[in-house]
Amino acid sequence: MTRNTLISATLTAALLPAGAAFAQDTVDPAVLQTDMVFILNSLLFLVGGFLVFWMAAGFAMLEAGLVRSKNVTMQLTKNMALFSLAAIAYYLIGYNLMYPLGDWAVDGVFSALFPAVAVLEVVGVDAAGADDYSYASTGSDFFFQLMFCAATASIVSGTVAERIRLWPFLIFVIILTGIIYPLQASWKWGGGFLDEMGFLDFAGSTVVHSVGGWAALVGAIILGPRIGKYKDGKTIPMPGSNLALATLGTFILWMGWFGFNGGSQLAMGSVGDVADISRIFSNTNAAAAGGAVTALILTQLLYKKPDLTMILNGALAGLVSITAEPLTPSLGAATLIGAVGGVIVVFAVPFLDKLKIDDVVGAIPVHLFAGIWGTIAVVFTNGDASLGTQLYSILVVGIFTVVASAIVWFILKATLGIRVGEEEEITGLDTTELGMEAYPEFSKG
Amino acid sequence: MTRNTLISATLTAALLPAGAAFAQDTVDPAVLQTDMVFILNSLLFLVGGFLVFWMAAGFAMLEAGLVRSKNVTMQLTKNMALFSLAAIAYYLIGYNLMYPLGDWAVDGVFSALFPAVAVLEVVGVDAAGADDYSYASTGSDFFFQLMFCAATASIVSGTVAERIRLWPFLIFVIILTGIIYPLQASWKWGGGFLDEMGFLDFAGSTVVHSVGGWAALVGAIILGPRIGKYKDGKTIPMPGSNLALATLGTFILWMGWFGFNGGSQLAMGSVGDVADISRIFSNTNAAAAGGAVTALILTQLLYKKPDLTMILNGALAGLVSITAEPLTPSLGAATLIGAVGGVIVVFAVPFLDKLKIDDVVGAIPVHLFAGIWGTIAVVFTNGDASLGTQLYSILVVGIFTVVASAIVWFILKATLGIRVGEEEEITGLDTTELGMEAYPEFSKG
Amino acid sequence: MTRNTLISATLTAALLPAGAAFAQDTVDPAVLQTDMVFILNSLLFLVGGFLVFWMAAGFAMLEAGLVRSKNVTMQLTKNMALFSLAAIAYYLIGYNLMYPLGDWAVDGVFSALFPAVAVLEVVGVDAAGADDYSYASTGSDFFFQLMFCAATASIVSGTVAERIRLWPFLIFVIILTGIIYPLQASWKWGGGFLDEMGFLDFAGSTVVHSVGGWAALVGAIILGPRIGKYKDGKTIPMPGSNLALATLGTFILWMGWFGFNGGSQLAMGSVGDVADISRIFSNTNAAAAGGAVTALILTQLLYKKPDLTMILNGALAGLVSITAEPLTPSLGAATLIGAVGGVIVVFAVPFLDKLKIDDVVGAIPVHLFAGIWGTIAVVFTNGDASLGTQLYSILVVGIFTVVASAIVWFILKATLGIRVGEEEEITGLDTTELGMEAYPEFSKG
Repeated sequence: MTRNTLISATLTAALLPAGAAFAQDTVDPAVLQTDMVFILNSLLFLVGGFLVFWMAAGFAMLEAGLVRSKNVTMQLTKNMALFSLAAIAYYLIGYNLMYPLGDWAVDGVFSALFPAVAVLEVVGVDAAGADDYSYASTGSDFFFQLMFCAATASIVSGTVAERIRLWPFLIFVIILTGIIYPLQASWKWGGGFLDEMGFLDFAGSTVVHSVGGWAALVGAIILGPRIGKYKDGKTIPMPGSNLALATLGTFILWMGWFGFNGGSQLAMGSVGDVADISRIFSNTNAAAAGGAVTALILTQLLYKKPDLTMILNGALAGLVSITAEPLTPSLGAATLIGAVGGVIVVFAVPFLDKLKIDDVVGAIPVHLFAGIWGTIAVVFTNGDASLGTQLYSILVVGIFTVVASAIVWFILKATLGIRVGEEEEITGLDTTELGMEAYPEFSKG
Repeated sequence: MTRNTLISATLTAALLPAGAAFAQDTVDPAVLQTDMVFILNSLLFLVGGFLVFWMAAGFAMLEAGLVRSKNVTMQLTKNMALFSLAAIAYYLIGYNLMYPLGDWAVDGVFSALFPAVAVLEVVGVDAAGADDYSYASTGSDFFFQLMFCAATASIVSGTVAERIRLWPFLIFVIILTGIIYPLQASWKWGGGFLDEMGFLDFAGSTVVHSVGGWAALVGAIILGPRIGKYKDGKTIPMPGSNLALATLGTFILWMGWFGFNGGSQLAMGSVGDVADISRIFSNTNAAAAGGAVTALILTQLLYKKPDLTMILNGALAGLVSITAEPLTPSLGAATLIGAVGGVIVVFAVPFLDKLKIDDVVGAIPVHLFAGIWGTIAVVFTNGDASLGTQLYSILVVGIFTVVASAIVWFILKATLGIRVGEEEEITGLDTTELGMEAYPEFSKG
Repeated sequence: MTRNTLISATLTAALLPAGAAFAQDTVDPAVLQTDMVFILNSLLFLVGGFLVFWMAAGFAMLEAGLVRSKNVTMQLTKNMALFSLAAIAYYLIGYNLMYPLGDWAVDGVFSALFPAVAVLEVVGVDAAGADDYSYASTGSDFFFQLMFCAATASIVSGTVAERIRLWPFLIFVIILTGIIYPLQASWKWGGGFLDEMGFLDFAGSTVVHSVGGWAALVGAIILGPRIGKYKDGKTIPMPGSNLALATLGTFILWMGWFGFNGGSQLAMGSVGDVADISRIFSNTNAAAAGGAVTALILTQLLYKKPDLTMILNGALAGLVSITAEPLTPSLGAATLIGAVGGVIVVFAVPFLDKLKIDDVVGAIPVHLFAGIWGTIAVVFTNGDASLGTQLYSILVVGIFTVVASAIVWFILKATLGIRVGEEEEITGLDTTELGMEAYPEFSKG
């Protein structure tokens, strides 16, 4: 960071194709343009990536706010750990599963086992690819994609909160982020068979959100509800301990979603691309607003009192709903697509309770149901979408994720056990499993 | 988001003027330059926009931290709802009022009623305008401007907290963001009569902050103070329930302000523009620091104890003060301009209490008084500013906002009623109006 | 912000070298390229800068979460005040000490006393420097560098929390940020003797983090431990009052670190630079994940229970560890470098307690010990690094900071006194020193 020496050659510079180097005397405008596209695309991934990273904090705050205070430290621990483990699993295994790198040089046993590792060790712009030089830096692509993978795991942790054991959950996260998520993501985003069929899922209503939602649903069913949640045919409310945190988490997720959807344009180097990203930002915001307002009005009408947790989940459902196609809708259509997400949440939350499926934070309505809705809604605004293909893809991804998740959850249940003991659950996971309270000085009412 | 297909033609690309398309063989440097200006300007709005969006979270946290715990859920609900409603109202009505779009194609009744809607439905870069091709994408402009509009409403919610009814407040928000704010904003930023007179208000000390402040002031007067706030000629302190949240909110607002002021440069495609934005960032930071330090020192001197809530509001007042002209001051001048904002806060908060105007979070000193100061302070550093015009504009905007707000508040009072019942207020809005506590497990002292 | 007039000449434009102005007719691609490099470099500093600014909020939340509730208002006050004072001190004195501006025009007594002030008053791009025109705007550089300076002070406040008096602490901050930090930073980043020797410290494991850590260590020793912390040879746990806040703070710091390390590339205008920044983002993330996972596993193994505060500090130690060289390591190496940071934290926290050095938030292990480790680790992945030079530089910076800090702390102790009274400390600083509780309504257990 010495100003005097900053122009010194970097590692990367040495590996650049000759054309990419800046000539001092004459500048070829075509090369300059290619450079600018590369820089702006990479910048999109970096900014989009740190915004999606920020969503990890959003999930953590949302979930910490919606669990009871006796389980807050555990929920925070799970969120911090799941993101960190996802980063390692996606690096070691997932990235290569998702974007098969078959034509890259692989030498030795290690790089054969972990081809993504081998590839990612290449410094900076890879020398191999003129293709990639017209795209973006490998590092920025990895950074951006990793954040999506981690988001999938964050979705699960909310649903299974307050009763799942830490380590079995974390093992599930490793398999989800290292294998399940990347494998199915390759079918669409790796150029696989769903992509070839014409499946459209711009930023992942299905690929990210429904996958997290399915894994959460299976987990919730196999785990069973929290003790005391359903008694004598009634649902016993277990209110979140800190709605300020939950609201903060929702605002964080909303903010991060601009990177989630906007970054998924995958390019910012042309006038058309940046105009598209602008539409995506506006539509993403409109859908969230539509979802929140709908939940506000609906809960007022149904229960005579607006329900803040429903409003928060309504906003999130709006965001999930627009994620499969944030570009083609008009602002009005985006608002309506989000509004349907809000309706889904308001009706799905009590519906799941009827089925005695205990979803602590409402992640299944938000990410699974609104994710399915968003994937279907593509057909209303994008002429290239086929309803059949959308439904088929939802089904294929759903069945795969359910089966794969169920196998992992069952193996974990049969071996390590996935649920804490009854006493531990009643006392709270913080003191029994971690020996550390989140709010040790605030006496409980 | 498939890498293999990302270069596929987008919707927008089809609508681009021919010159904007990237030729593969020969690249005209003049076209490349125009493209880059468009991309960088749009990027400024997108980054600035998500930073100003983030301010919505800042207001929510600041206000949730400064109200008593029995009203926290209500304050969070109001903030989430007001932002969402502002997004819809500004889209349907406000944007067109602010930037009259008369020369745009309007067809049919709907587009006649909601011309902004019609305009914004145009995909991406609009085919109509070479003008806009030299500016930025319509979507990014809308996104950025929307956030300013929403901020105006956020200002109001803090002042009238803890006693106003939810729905009348939200109706006020719709009118404020759909009509009042955009109408007066058009006088300056829509190229209206104040702009033609030479009124200078770079990022909105008057156009945004004082408007929010005036609306809040009128609301506070019409609503009256909280029960028990003024007794026997004394002001009874009603301390905020969570100063960590309030501090977080202030940091969020401070961060978002870089987008608020920096983005208001409206251009980043030239060396001069980015240098200006850099100055603006530095000056914005300096003014906040000046306001905070002044409040720290003043409260130490006056009360022998530094007052954190004053320091927070001092920083915010510093930010508001520099908002009318964040470019021309030197860093030292910016610090001093902010410092005066800090002085204003320290004296205006007790002054309002003397007048029995109950401003729960101090938004009137911060946004109205410091907004006026900032608008006047332009004359000290910007030679183009005329004190007469600045004062005249402050007055015009003030009178309009006071009259318009008063009419709306009075109609709401006469019809729906704007204040909760005495018992509801004493018990707290969370349990009585919403049936949901923000911190249900923490017993109250 | 009037759209119609935005192309109007800005102050800066008038000062630009002729070549930088945009010609309307013919565009020289070489000039366009130089402009783009300048814009993109400045943009990197602005985005990096607001991310590092955000770290100030991260430190505030982390520290507010880890102190006991009776000292939260004080900790928040210190953080808000220290950032603001750092902004002023770095402006008035520090920036010029760090980047000596000898060849700039200095006229008059004031500008002789405060040359940085004089320099920074130059509007926008400085007319003086073709050098700077090939770099970035002075304003963006100042903005970015200021945030690093403030981070150094934030490190100190956590260690000495819960017992230090406000004003002596703030005076220390002024000297640290105005003189101590910039002076030693000039040795490396100002092109001084350590830089000439070949010392490598990319984003400041030594220059920022160890300096904050050394100053904190000396402060902790001179202050002594909190009352009751060490009794009968045992360490009495004093758990943090709000682990949700502490976790939020860690996520904020993690996010900000992308700007901290990525921005320290100091350039984004070429393909190679943006590819480097991408690697830096990925490596920074990998190191944080490595530190967090290691602390998770280690505390599970050592104490049979994962320790959230250790996991948080593990992530932070991972981040500090990679800061001296975030570019050259592979992702795997970055993960391992971060992992060692996690190991350091887990063992150093109890080790400091053995020595009866009371570091309230664990800043010394995180910033000093992991900072030293990170500076040494450069030699493993960067062929240009010499172990001798790294060790020598660590030592030189350490000795200077320890001696300078000790002198300031001792003078403050001898004159104002640095420690609150025993009764004040036991009752809590919030009520005794500030008369304001952070959570006034939540009764203490």
